[in-house]
Amino acid sequence: MSITTDPKLRSFIEIPPDSHFPIQNLPYGVFRNNSGGTPRVGVAIGEFVLDLSVLDEAGLFNIPELDGKKYFHQPSLNAFMSAGQKVWKKTRERISQLLREDEATLRDNDTLRTQALIPLSQIELLMPVEIGDYTDFYSSREHATNVGTMFRGKENALMPNWLWIPVGYHGRASSVVVSGTPIRRPLGQTRTDDTQPPVFGPSRLLDFELEMGFFVGPESKLGEPIPIEKTHEHIFGMVLVNDWSARDIQKWEYVPLGPFLAKNFATSISPWVVTMEALEPFRCEGPPQDPTPLPYLQSAGKQAFDIHLEVLLKSKRMEAPVRICQSNFRYLYWSMYQQLAHHTITGCNVRPGDLMASGTISGPTPDSYGSMLELTWRGSKPIRLSESETRKFLEDGDTVIMTGWCQGDGYRVGFGEVIGEILPALDMEF
Amino acid sequence: MSITTDPKLRSFIEIPPDSHFPIQNLPYGVFRNNSGGTPRVGVAIGEFVLDLSVLDEAGLFNIPELDGKKYFHQPSLNAFMSAGQKVWKKTRERISQLLREDEATLRDNDTLRTQALIPLSQIELLMPVEIGDYTDFYSSREHATNVGTMFRGKENALMPNWLWIPVGYHGRASSVVVSGTPIRRPLGQTRTDDTQPPVFGPSRLLDFELEMGFFVGPESKLGEPIPIEKTHEHIFGMVLVNDWSARDIQKWEYVPLGPFLAKNFATSISPWVVTMEALEPFRCEGPPQDPTPLPYLQSAGKQAFDIHLEVLLKSKRMEAPVRICQSNFRYLYWSMYQQLAHHTITGCNVRPGDLMASGTISGPTPDSYGSMLELTWRGSKPIRLSESETRKFLEDGDTVIMTGWCQGDGYRVGFGEVIGEILPALDMEF
Repeated sequence: MSITTDPKLRSFIEIPPDSHFPIQNLPYGVFRNNSGGTPRVGVAIGEFVLDLSVLDEAGLFNIPELDGKKYFHQPSLNAFMSAGQKVWKKTRERISQLLREDEATLRDNDTLRTQALIPLSQIELLMPVEIGDYTDFYSSREHATNVGTMFRGKENALMPNWLWIPVGYHGRASSVVVSGTPIRRPLGQTRTDDTQPPVFGPSRLLDFELEMGFFVGPESKLGEPIPIEKTHEHIFGMVLVNDWSARDIQKWEYVPLGPFLAKNFATSISPWVVTMEALEPFRCEGPPQDPTPLPYLQSAGKQAFDIHLEVLLKSKRMEAPVRICQSNFRYLYWSMYQQLAHHTITGCNVRPGDLMASGTISGPTPDSYGSMLELTWRGSKPIRLSESETRKFLEDGDTVIMTGWCQGDGYRVGFGEVIGEILPALDMEF
Repeated sequence: MSITTDPKLRSFIEIPPDSHFPIQNLPYGVFRNNSGGTPRVGVAIGEFVLDLSVLDEAGLFNIPELDGKKYFHQPSLNAFMSAGQKVWKKTRERISQLLREDEATLRDNDTLRTQALIPLSQIELLMPVEIGDYTDFYSSREHATNVGTMFRGKENALMPNWLWIPVGYHGRASSVVVSGTPIRRPLGQTRTDDTQPPVFGPSRLLDFELEMGFFVGPESKLGEPIPIEKTHEHIFGMVLVNDWSARDIQKWEYVPLGPFLAKNFATSISPWVVTMEALEPFRCEGPPQDPTPLPYLQSAGKQAFDIHLEVLLKSKRMEAPVRICQSNFRYLYWSMYQQLAHHTITGCNVRPGDLMASGTISGPTPDSYGSMLELTWRGSKPIRLSESETRKFLEDGDTVIMTGWCQGDGYRVGFGEVIGEILPALDMEF
């Protein structure tokens, strides 16, 4: 057990048992004051953000491993992510120490504490990372089977390569946005009648996809694969990901080169990056893999993480959101380590801040499906939101909320939320 | 006729008629001295690079439109690309003026001239742009038809969406490299026998793809499509692109989400970015479009450019490269303006330095096909390189050279070359 993940660890800051941000978590984010000011790096603790730039100014990060580098006076986590496991570990230990109930440095220094601990209500959370490349995998067997069944029929549901390859594709980095950013319903081409030309207009089959993603830490060199047993050194932490999808655009465009406009209009991520160190106590077995993967994808030990996931939806007319899906990160067939080993096996290089998402995380039961497409089975089984409302796909004004956490004994290591509201399509003249 | 593209324009620097870099061209690149030093922005002129940072230091870019900004003391063109057409135009006019045979400022100032004009042999050309997102289109009808015929048969060659949509997909930005970078043969999974499991090893069907790409200038905002009539304001200039491809990896992995590892190991670009202003005199009609594109993809006037393209190949045993393909950028069915309008129609934002490549540029005749896959028709018709050598796909030690130029009356506006040599695959143990 690491000193920083001890379930008995307590902070001098009071934290309720259902908080996502106890001292066992310490996720990193980038924020600025609501009143403005410079973006900088902080850590969530209970209902506060701990301003690491303030602690650094106060000389509290004079740790040899940090080598005097200014990781926290930064508008992104990229520099810190590139620093690697030793620096991450030492930084976490120091932060954990400073927040302990039996440590006086911060607890008893009123001036410093007031400067460094800012209520979450007084800050704005920004994109935590400058994303170089964004890759989206397709690693849930249940999701691939569901979608394959709908698009290609039950016989061709799972492609012959699926059980051999962590299938993935390159996504659009420019349109990855932080939680809270409104999502404009996209315009595009669709074809509903194969005997007629395609038509132009707002997507009618707008969807979410419940995903998680990991951020790459230290880079790898072009031409040099990362062996699977080294992949963990290149993974900094994780976020929730909503891979917004326009199903009607996707259906018309996706052959033969894959999804493009159906996905590139927006991808939302949660603002707090939960470190792999905080997740370590929640390691668990993933699904058995049969056939046995090729050797470059084999690794021993627990490769999955037990992260409970939920999707909630709130229409304009509803007062409170209603839960429409419960899933778990552990359902994924391919592990993050396999994904990264596969991604780089050709020699493709990765860089600090690259985002690699899991693909939709669907579980075995219909209430665990991670998209409207699956939950409503392509619109054929609308879901009931309230006495007066049902949904086949997302409507304007709908807000989608994803959340997730690891349940410890009396505490949670949580991801907060990723939220997005659907705005009506632009009214464009052509 | 623009003052800077006048075919009669002459520089005080002697330039042979087959040079790619006469005063009518003035492409931008990023370089440093062979002996080291800081990367900075220059322009190719004949056998020299004109160091713009030196001219700027000498006060020769005190142009109101540039607003005192330091565009040329930079390790990339991104800042200059983001500045927009007015700045590009004024800068080009000033550079053109300074290089004219009847302008004394640079010509007669020995000290300044020696500092500012450096022989190309004394510099190293670097990646000219920090690429945020890289998109690859699939805009040659001939190429799509050829590949479709081979992979899916003649009846399903051109997908139903192809004549309606400038089909494209997101590529990998991290592995876009500048000409001269050696290309390591990738490792990966392939399956040659459908009754057997896939196998792991070096790609055996390594290929090039003859493409061109354009760089995005000023950004667009998320949620705001760029109308097609405004797209030209967002296009800075063009380069040659070699989209290296592993056909055997591609065949096994590409369904249903498109090419991934088969492409992400490397993409090479030529180091000089030729501006749209320099290409303007070579505008021409593209192929007729039938069916008529949807209104958001319609625009009047000449949308193509007459750019002659060649691919040459040199094996280890050959003394000189041999030409294996001649094509032309004008063959492309979809224009750059249509590509960019389509890419952003969902509201996907673009950023300065984004690269958008054309897809393989194949022409109507077999000697104009832009890949080995097509030239050798999947290896069934090997091409003869010399008395003693033939090729189905690329072999270790092969060097691929792509070049291209617009032929003016007694001068050329050229792209130089994009070169890459194939290194043997890594010998990895698993």
